Amino acid sequence: MKFRAKVEVTLKEGVLDSQGRTILGGLRSLGYGDVEEVRTGKLLQLSLTAEDQAQAASQLEEMARRLLANPVLEKFTFVLEQA
Amino acid sequence: MKFRAKVEVTLKEGVLDSQGRTILGGLRSLGYGDVEEVRTGKLLQLSLTAEDQAQAASQLEEMARRLLANPVLEKFTFVLEQA
Repeated sequence: MKFRAKVEVTLKEGVLDSQGRTILGGLRSLGYGDVEEVRTGKLLQLSLTAEDQAQAASQLEEMARRLLANPVLEKFTFVLEQA
Repeated sequence: MKFRAKVEVTLKEGVLDSQGRTILGGLRSLGYGDVEEVRTGKLLQLSLTAEDQAQAASQLEEMARRLLANPVLEKFTFVLEQA
């Protein structure tokens, strides 16, 4: 079975998001003073084949831990759907 | 009113995603041969104040076009909820 997955990798709470700060500064200098915070993250869209959804989920979990996210600084969530 | 927005910025179809290719190569070399494609994108989580949801959405649309996404190479979608 083919699956499509969307993985969101974001910085853990408390980790300084310097890219987010830079974007916030940029928005403010463009006049968007109503923005209070910007946090950035990575989005990964994967196509994969697995026997069933449970196997796809366990593979994704493992891939995210091993390669897609840095477990020291980042956390991840994913949604998985049949393609 | 306070809002939280999640903006997803992804490369347009047909734009070469070299970061995605690199991640795909990494996954395969770790033994995940069942992954067929990886596309990468940016995730931006914003906190902002606006008079109502329509105003927040129109501000977001404008910010995404002007700063958050590169309209030549990227497209964006967002979801907006009251904080």
